[in-house]
Amino acid sequence: MCLSGALSAFVKAQQLAAELIYPYASLVPAGPEKLLFQLFVIFVAAKIVGEIFERLRMPAVLGEIVAGVVLGPYAFGIIHPTDTIYSIAEIGAIFVLFQAGLGTRPQDLIRISHKALLVAVVGILVPFILGFLFMWLRGDGTTEATFVGAAMVATSVGITARLLGDLGVLDSRAAKIILGAAVFDDILGMVLLAVVAGLASAAGIRWLHLGVLTAEAIVFAALMIFLGSRMVRPLRARVETLSTHNAPLIIALAICLLLSWMAAKIGMAAIIGAFFAGLIFADYSPEWELLPRVTSISDFLAPYFFFSIGARFDVGLFTGKVLIAAIVISVLAIVSKLLGCGLPLLGEGWHTAMTVGIGMMPRGEVALIVALVGLNSHIVTQPSYAIVVFMTAVTTVLAPPILRYVFRNEVREVADALHAHPF
Amino acid sequence: MCLSGALSAFVKAQQLAAELIYPYASLVPAGPEKLLFQLFVIFVAAKIVGEIFERLRMPAVLGEIVAGVVLGPYAFGIIHPTDTIYSIAEIGAIFVLFQAGLGTRPQDLIRISHKALLVAVVGILVPFILGFLFMWLRGDGTTEATFVGAAMVATSVGITARLLGDLGVLDSRAAKIILGAAVFDDILGMVLLAVVAGLASAAGIRWLHLGVLTAEAIVFAALMIFLGSRMVRPLRARVETLSTHNAPLIIALAICLLLSWMAAKIGMAAIIGAFFAGLIFADYSPEWELLPRVTSISDFLAPYFFFSIGARFDVGLFTGKVLIAAIVISVLAIVSKLLGCGLPLLGEGWHTAMTVGIGMMPRGEVALIVALVGLNSHIVTQPSYAIVVFMTAVTTVLAPPILRYVFRNEVREVADALHAHPF
Repeated sequence: MCLSGALSAFVKAQQLAAELIYPYASLVPAGPEKLLFQLFVIFVAAKIVGEIFERLRMPAVLGEIVAGVVLGPYAFGIIHPTDTIYSIAEIGAIFVLFQAGLGTRPQDLIRISHKALLVAVVGILVPFILGFLFMWLRGDGTTEATFVGAAMVATSVGITARLLGDLGVLDSRAAKIILGAAVFDDILGMVLLAVVAGLASAAGIRWLHLGVLTAEAIVFAALMIFLGSRMVRPLRARVETLSTHNAPLIIALAICLLLSWMAAKIGMAAIIGAFFAGLIFADYSPEWELLPRVTSISDFLAPYFFFSIGARFDVGLFTGKVLIAAIVISVLAIVSKLLGCGLPLLGEGWHTAMTVGIGMMPRGEVALIVALVGLNSHIVTQPSYAIVVFMTAVTTVLAPPILRYVFRNEVREVADALHAHPF
Repeated sequence: MCLSGALSAFVKAQQLAAELIYPYASLVPAGPEKLLFQLFVIFVAAKIVGEIFERLRMPAVLGEIVAGVVLGPYAFGIIHPTDTIYSIAEIGAIFVLFQAGLGTRPQDLIRISHKALLVAVVGILVPFILGFLFMWLRGDGTTEATFVGAAMVATSVGITARLLGDLGVLDSRAAKIILGAAVFDDILGMVLLAVVAGLASAAGIRWLHLGVLTAEAIVFAALMIFLGSRMVRPLRARVETLSTHNAPLIIALAICLLLSWMAAKIGMAAIIGAFFAGLIFADYSPEWELLPRVTSISDFLAPYFFFSIGARFDVGLFTGKVLIAAIVISVLAIVSKLLGCGLPLLGEGWHTAMTVGIGMMPRGEVALIVALVGLNSHIVTQPSYAIVVFMTAVTTVLAPPILRYVFRNEVREVADALHAHPF
C-alpha cells in the first residue's frame, strides 16, 4: 500500500504542478493524452520490472507480467488499460509469435529426430491428462478442465532457448533434444489452442466441430511447414524490382497480418497464423534482415501484451481453494513434464532424461494465450485464469536455477575453456 | 463505382465461402477478427497504391493517402476505420516524427548558415499571411483562417530530402540551403502547431494563452536542441550495464513516449515531443543503430496514419466554392514559397533562388497534422480540412517533376559521371 500511495501521490502532485504551471492544459482534449500516458507508463514499468528480474536471474518476461499485476486494476489500480491498450496488446502477441516463427527454420523441424517428436508428444499428453483430470475431479466443467489442461502442455521455446543460450550449452545433446521438442511442442500446443479456441465458440464440446478444427489446424500447419517457405521463393526475384522502401519487410508484415486474420477467420487463434508467417520467412530472414527488424517492432509492442496478461490477474482470488488448486496444478505441471519428457529418454541415461524434463518445464506465451482466449470468450472463470498464470510463473521461475544446477558441470567446462582461452 | 462493386462482391464472396467451408467461423467473437481485417487491408492497400505512385515517380506517402480516400467511408466505404485504428494512426504519426528527428543532427541546426534561417522564416511568414488573408477575406472565422495559414507553412523535410537524394544532387549548394531551411521550417512549423493546438482548445484567440504557449514551445524547442543531446551522454555508460535486451532502443522509445505525453500534457501536439525525442538521440543513432530500428516500427505503423488522413477526406465536398478555394490556396501555397524562399536569395542569382523556392514547395506531414488537430477539435470545418489536404497533395505532386527539370543539368552530370565510371 505504501508503494501505491507514493505512486498515486506522485501522479497527483504531477497533475497539480502541470495545472499550476500550464493553466490551459486542461483545455486540451483528454483522449490522446490518456492513451499516451498509458503507453508511457506501461512501457516503462514493464521494462523496469523486467530489468530487475533479469538482474535477479529470472526471465524479463515474468517481470513485465508482474508489472501488470502490480499496477493493474486488481492490485494498486494505477493503470486501468483501455480497450485500445488491449488491442495493442493483441497486436503485440502477434509480433511475439511472428518473431518466434522467424527464428524457427522449417527444415530443422522436418529433419528433427523422432526422439524429439516422441518427447514432445508424450510431454504434451501427460500434462494435459493430469491437468484435465485434476480440474474435472475438482468439479469444474469439461470445457474449463480442457482449457486448463491445454494451457499446461506447451513448453515456451523462447524462454528455453534463451536459458540454454545464457548457460552456453546450446551444443549439448540434451539441449538439442530440448529445443527440437520445444519447437514441436509449440506447434502441437497451437493445434491444441485451435481446438480450444473452437471450444470457446460453442457451448460445450461438439465432436464434429472439434474434428473439423483439428483437421484444419493440422492441414494449415502442414501446408505452412512443408510448402510455405517454397511459396516465398518465386516472390524473391520480384521483391528486388519493387520501388517500395524496405520491400521485404513490408511483404513479410503483409503476409503476417493476412495469415493472422485468416487464422482468426477459420476459427483458430490469430497468433497461430503469425507464427506460421514467421516460419515461412525464416529461411529468408538472414538475407532480408527480417528478424532484427521484426524484433524492433516486437520490442515496442510486446510489453503491452505481457503487461495486459498481468493486469487481468486478480491477486485477490488467491485464498483457500484457489491457492491450493494453483499449487497442485503447478506441481502437476512440473511433474508431468519431467515424466512425459523424461520417460521416452530413459534409454539415454538418467541424467539426460532429467535434464530434458527440466528443460521442458517453463511454460510461457502459449499457456498465457490459451488462458486469455478462454477468459475473453467467457468460458474460463477468473480463478482458472489465475491458476494458469500462477502455474506459468512458477514453472518459469523454477526452471532457470534448476537447469543451471543440472548443467553445472557443462557450465564449469565452458567457464574453464573461456578461462584457458579467453579469446 | 465499378471498382467498388467488384471489391464488395469479392468481400461478400469470400465471406460466403468462409461460411460454407468453415461452418463454425461465425461463432468466433468478431472483435479481434474485424481489427485484424482492417489492419491487413489498410496496410496492403496503402502499400500497393504507394508502390504504384513510386513507379509513376510520385511520393509513396501520397499513394498511401489516396488509398485512404478511395477505400475510406467518403468514397467506396470498404473500410470504416475503428477508433482503435485511429489510435494506432496517432502512434504511427509519433513514429514518423521520431524517425524524422533521429535523422536531424542538432549541431547541423546550430551550425546552419543564417541564410537558411532567413529562408525558413520569410518562407513561413509569406504563406501564412497569404493563406490567412485569403480565408479571412473569404469570410471564414479568424481561428479557421489561422489554421489554414498554419498548415501552409511547413515544408516537408522528409519528402524534400528523399527527392534531392533520388536526384543525386544532395551536395549542391541549393540542396544544402533547401535542407537546412526545411529542417528549421519543420521546427518553426511545430512551434506554430503548438500555438494552433492551443487555439483549438479555446473558443477564439486568447492572447495571454497564445503567449504562454509560444513561450512554452520556444523554451521546449531550445532546451531540446541545445541541451537534449547532452542529457543523453551520462546515460551512455549506464546503458551498457543494463541486462535488458536491446537497451538503447528501449530507452529511446521510453523517452519518445515520455516527451510525446509531456508535449500533449502542456498543450502542444504529441508529435512535437516525438520529434524532439528523435533530435535528442540523433547523435547516438549510428552507434546504437536507432534509426533502422525505429524505421522498422514506423514502416509498420505509418501507413495507418497516412491512410487515416485520406479516410477523413470527403471527396464529395469538392464542388463549386470549395473547389475554387482549394485551387486558390494551392496556387498561393506554391507562389508564397517561391517568393518567401526565393527573395532572400536573389543575391545568389535567379537559378539558385528559383531552385530553393521550388525545393521548399512540398508540404507534408506537418500540414496534415495541423489540419487533423483542427478537425478533431471541431474548430476547423470539413471543407477547410479538405482544402488543406488538397493543397498538400498538389504541392507534393508538382514538386518532383519541376525539381527534376530545374536540376536537369546537374542530374545529367551525375548520369554522365556514372556512365563514365560505372563503379
